Amino acid sequence: MKNRIITLLSDFGTRDPFVGVMKGVIHTINPRAIIVDLTHEISPQDIFEGAFSLYQSYGYFPDDTIHLAVVDPGVGGGRKAVIVRAGCHLFVAPDNGVASLAAQRESAAPEVFEITNPEYTLGRISSTFHGRDVFAPAAAYLSKGVLPGRMGARAEDFIKIKIPEVLIEGSIAAAAVIHTDRFGNLITNIDGSLRERIARIKVRNRVIEKISNSYEQGKQGELLAIFGSTGFLEISINKESASEYTGLKKGDDIIVDLK
Amino acid sequence: MKNRIITLLSDFGTRDPFVGVMKGVIHTINPRAIIVDLTHEISPQDIFEGAFSLYQSYGYFPDDTIHLAVVDPGVGGGRKAVIVRAGCHLFVAPDNGVASLAAQRESAAPEVFEITNPEYTLGRISSTFHGRDVFAPAAAYLSKGVLPGRMGARAEDFIKIKIPEVLIEGSIAAAAVIHTDRFGNLITNIDGSLRERIARIKVRNRVIEKISNSYEQGKQGELLAIFGSTGFLEISINKESASEYTGLKKGDDIIVDLK
Amino acid sequence: MKNRIITLLSDFGTRDPFVGVMKGVIHTINPRAIIVDLTHEISPQDIFEGAFSLYQSYGYFPDDTIHLAVVDPGVGGGRKAVIVRAGCHLFVAPDNGVASLAAQRESAAPEVFEITNPEYTLGRISSTFHGRDVFAPAAAYLSKGVLPGRMGARAEDFIKIKIPEVLIEGSIAAAAVIHTDRFGNLITNIDGSLRERIARIKVRNRVIEKISNSYEQGKQGELLAIFGSTGFLEISINKESASEYTGLKKGDDIIVDLK
Repeated sequence: MKNRIITLLSDFGTRDPFVGVMKGVIHTINPRAIIVDLTHEISPQDIFEGAFSLYQSYGYFPDDTIHLAVVDPGVGGGRKAVIVRAGCHLFVAPDNGVASLAAQRESAAPEVFEITNPEYTLGRISSTFHGRDVFAPAAAYLSKGVLPGRMGARAEDFIKIKIPEVLIEGSIAAAAVIHTDRFGNLITNIDGSLRERIARIKVRNRVIEKISNSYEQGKQGELLAIFGSTGFLEISINKESASEYTGLKKGDDIIVDLK
Repeated sequence: MKNRIITLLSDFGTRDPFVGVMKGVIHTINPRAIIVDLTHEISPQDIFEGAFSLYQSYGYFPDDTIHLAVVDPGVGGGRKAVIVRAGCHLFVAPDNGVASLAAQRESAAPEVFEITNPEYTLGRISSTFHGRDVFAPAAAYLSKGVLPGRMGARAEDFIKIKIPEVLIEGSIAAAAVIHTDRFGNLITNIDGSLRERIARIKVRNRVIEKISNSYEQGKQGELLAIFGSTGFLEISINKESASEYTGLKKGDDIIVDLK
Repeated sequence: MKNRIITLLSDFGTRDPFVGVMKGVIHTINPRAIIVDLTHEISPQDIFEGAFSLYQSYGYFPDDTIHLAVVDPGVGGGRKAVIVRAGCHLFVAPDNGVASLAAQRESAAPEVFEITNPEYTLGRISSTFHGRDVFAPAAAYLSKGVLPGRMGARAEDFIKIKIPEVLIEGSIAAAAVIHTDRFGNLITNIDGSLRERIARIKVRNRVIEKISNSYEQGKQGELLAIFGSTGFLEISINKESASEYTGLKKGDDIIVDLK
């Protein structure tokens, strides 16, 4: 019996015992599974937010980790339940894109399996909680070494979402805030590939003239731009919340002048 | 040394380190215990909410799981500390009903033991934190195989609370919202036994004419009724919060016309 | 390979996957580490709050536990990363005082090591997330038995913060609220050493005439004073929030008449 890590990501919150119940199901099938919470505070039914959280997290786990991601507005409807094998990682999720940012980063051609074999789900499948009835059992059986192909047939493809692209016209780049974190840092969709071309960054009516290397390089109360721990450019303020200071939130635009 | 699961449920929240401290106490006594959080966000001192969370969760854990439930407004006063053995599950809790919905579901005649033996508590018992000083040690010793009877004498009975009953008069059933979850679903006290008799459901000035099988069967912005993952009828809206939409909350009534 | 406990305390919150990522890093280095969350809801960048949480928690863990505490407003700047060995506990933290209340309680002369050896950090160290890149790897290697001295040289000293002292003038003691917990209990800096000298406690325009032994000794809606589970005097109300009732919060003063 393997002793493998299963990560959990969902929009279930921590007030209801949904997550605890999924862990009970997993431990019933594989008492030796090691379960690690990524987050359960994804905004309700926000598939992109879940996908982005998984994208920035999964790579820090060992090979053969099983990542269970349940943000599932279509539960009980027609969407498929899938296992995606990408590189050395396994993802178990509804087929709505929530695992697709991570899987596509890991492999250009992930293998997809549709979970259909009732031998590997709970006996009675509710129409509202497949996290418990379908996904947790699948992850638990994977952690015991059951092969994905046992749980259902190969699927041709799976639903993919993408990080919105920076639009470049001449020397102007139109970027966007794609996430704000607990500290109020504004994470943009500008990745390292643009780093050397950035001349200045316009955040509403303020201008940031350089890329900083640490929060401490910012003066008190002054916006700074920094390539953060996600690999994307973040707009921050030393010891304050850039989100509160600027009023910007997910989806708002940031203009960059290019060299 | 056994390697058993201990679930934790409390109203301690996750901002203070109360829960972490209980885990430290457990691991000091049994380093091999597997600890699983059900929830620590029970509304402060809300015994029914704790009891209902445990009721809907415990059954998904393997036999011999130990469930520690601490919602304890009477801590330091006269209430007993008990171990309840019901079917294949063990509950460790203050004797105020918090474990009683689960224990009564599991067994018509649970065995109750009062925790009194100082050999199985911390050396000095505070008057404000029995989760740490009494309940966590008891759960940890149980997880090592110590028998409940070693920790204190059998008690005649324990305090029981009940899920409020649906009141039926002729063809009218007066039900109630007993819980709202993170997604704003309104969980009622109507269980499957009434399913075939439901003609229509009246939620304030709106009428639901049928039972749906999935959230997706609801049109955008339209209330639907569905037997949810708890086994009870829930009032929901596809991709929205029924709680916000209707303004209903725990304790409010729902009228059902019966066939 | 040892099988040791690592506790985690941070101000990272649980919405972003920061904590999950740290756990991935730890499990990659030591798959057998047992990780226990103390809290991740420390107010952003509040070093004292983190230090006080750790101070009241660490002692309930077994010997040889490794305590990782990341409240780190100076990340990426000049502050050191340290391992502090105090008594039978190891602390891994930024050198800003966050581990100092606990370490000083445990030992009058803790040993301090600066983490500098790149063999024991992630290959590429970001300027914004040393929890992932420096502290989690150090804790994981310690849990495998690597000695602190392998990770860097002994440091002369580390930054210490203190619990603010009660000021006594004649028969008047000026105390302060140092923390409010989830239940609205106001934790003061009055420890057991003053217990026998307390005549009455003045909380704004209200007077508490005695020390209670349990919450239940308080009448409905009446303030009471109790030596709580932290060992400090707490101002509470039976089944209500003293914080809401009095409007007091961290930093506010409490006057005590002494015998």
